[in-house]
Amino acid sequence: MKVLRLNPPKLTVLKIGGSVITEKSEELTPRMQDINRLADEIKNAAIQNLVIVHGGGSFGHPVAQKYNISSGFKEGNQQGFAETHHVMTVLNGLFMDALIWRDIPAISITPSSCITTKKGRIQSFDEARFKALIKMGFLPVIYGDAVLDSELGFTILSGDQLVAHIATRFDTGRIIIGVDVDGLCSADPKTEKTAKMYEHLTLAELKTLQSQICKPMSCDVTGGMLGKMTELLPAVEHGIPVMIVNAKKPNYIYKALKGEDVQGTLIEKE
Amino acid sequence: MKVLRLNPPKLTVLKIGGSVITEKSEELTPRMQDINRLADEIKNAAIQNLVIVHGGGSFGHPVAQKYNISSGFKEGNQQGFAETHHVMTVLNGLFMDALIWRDIPAISITPSSCITTKKGRIQSFDEARFKALIKMGFLPVIYGDAVLDSELGFTILSGDQLVAHIATRFDTGRIIIGVDVDGLCSADPKTEKTAKMYEHLTLAELKTLQSQICKPMSCDVTGGMLGKMTELLPAVEHGIPVMIVNAKKPNYIYKALKGEDVQGTLIEKE
Repeated sequence: MKVLRLNPPKLTVLKIGGSVITEKSEELTPRMQDINRLADEIKNAAIQNLVIVHGGGSFGHPVAQKYNISSGFKEGNQQGFAETHHVMTVLNGLFMDALIWRDIPAISITPSSCITTKKGRIQSFDEARFKALIKMGFLPVIYGDAVLDSELGFTILSGDQLVAHIATRFDTGRIIIGVDVDGLCSADPKTEKTAKMYEHLTLAELKTLQSQICKPMSCDVTGGMLGKMTELLPAVEHGIPVMIVNAKKPNYIYKALKGEDVQGTLIEKE
Repeated sequence: MKVLRLNPPKLTVLKIGGSVITEKSEELTPRMQDINRLADEIKNAAIQNLVIVHGGGSFGHPVAQKYNISSGFKEGNQQGFAETHHVMTVLNGLFMDALIWRDIPAISITPSSCITTKKGRIQSFDEARFKALIKMGFLPVIYGDAVLDSELGFTILSGDQLVAHIATRFDTGRIIIGVDVDGLCSADPKTEKTAKMYEHLTLAELKTLQSQICKPMSCDVTGGMLGKMTELLPAVEHGIPVMIVNAKKPNYIYKALKGEDVQGTLIEKE
């Protein structure tokens, strides 16, 4: 696969989890204070060649689940697709508002307008436009969305798949994953007090960890973080380091962007 | 040029002018009452194979003009492009909100995510995705936007150019242009009491009218309507009738969509 080279510095792909910018337990509830704080941190870090991907949290997930959008188009469930896409544009709009009015030249990219999947995996994505935006000094912002699928009619495209796709298609220096926990842990840190956080993992160690943990996603004892890492594995295999940090803690994203020491889990190929 | 055929009925392209859904004299001011009324009319008309295009009004125009976006990318004016695109997504979001919560399966399509222009004219547009949406029973909603341009870097793409492009590329039965005046008049009906409205014009009559009126757009005595028609001429030449109606008057858009008698200007090839 041909990797598209950018001018130095290499691309930084920053993922902001839906659980950070929305109240997961309350449908359609943004966490405006965190959105604004993160916009400040992104502004202050002033990183070149940055791409932001954000998740859906309590905007995308409840609507998509209610209509079972990920299983595809069925006569009569068009409204569910329309609603899922719409609420994601609303969440994206709130995030963009925070960036734009801080004079950050951020451009939202609507996945459903430019990406088609095949059985849930990205099949086509217009890289030329994406590359042009970065070259012109823009900060592209893309997000998990309901998208058209060449086999299923439509489905859900996760932010994590977008992160891995963009990072492996462009000359990417690092991926920063901002979540609502401190890093990848041996158990769910929200419920298990004995949970131990991994500060550094190699690809081999990560794979061993995955094989030790029971297979179905539903019993992922790490609280979903290991499942998330499965989607990001191709990027690590490409040699792109992945840093998982707690985006709810002030200045953690800022420090990660600046390359300063910050608590979290660093995953590297070797 | 190959025309892409859809299942019958043929496509209806409905343009809603920015002057209808925004307060043109007040920056960033939506006319929510008209947005909601139009959403009701669109819901009640229940037309199949409908596409909606809307303009920017006091959202897109003032920001685009402030930064002179239509003349292209210059080092330092990225923020203007970002702001223009952002405010257009905000206006589109308000319009989408009104449609979606009336259970209309409307999908917004972001021009800057899927269209590139060349010197201001549409160069690439993903018709496959657009066609798939219509076939699945969705109502695509697209709008004037700031887009990337292969020669200028970026520029402004008008809703009127989108109307003509979509209508001529698909098997379109009619175009309905919803504006804030009663139709195409011999003078600006907002300022000239003697202005006479044309109820019917052939392509030849329209061209004669254009040649009689002084050339520069800035002295278009019809109040901008004749300039707008220049963009729509290719569609009329394709044999697609264009109906101009006052979208501020209740039920005019509803009647036009239903094919009922309504005051306005009908322009046909012959």
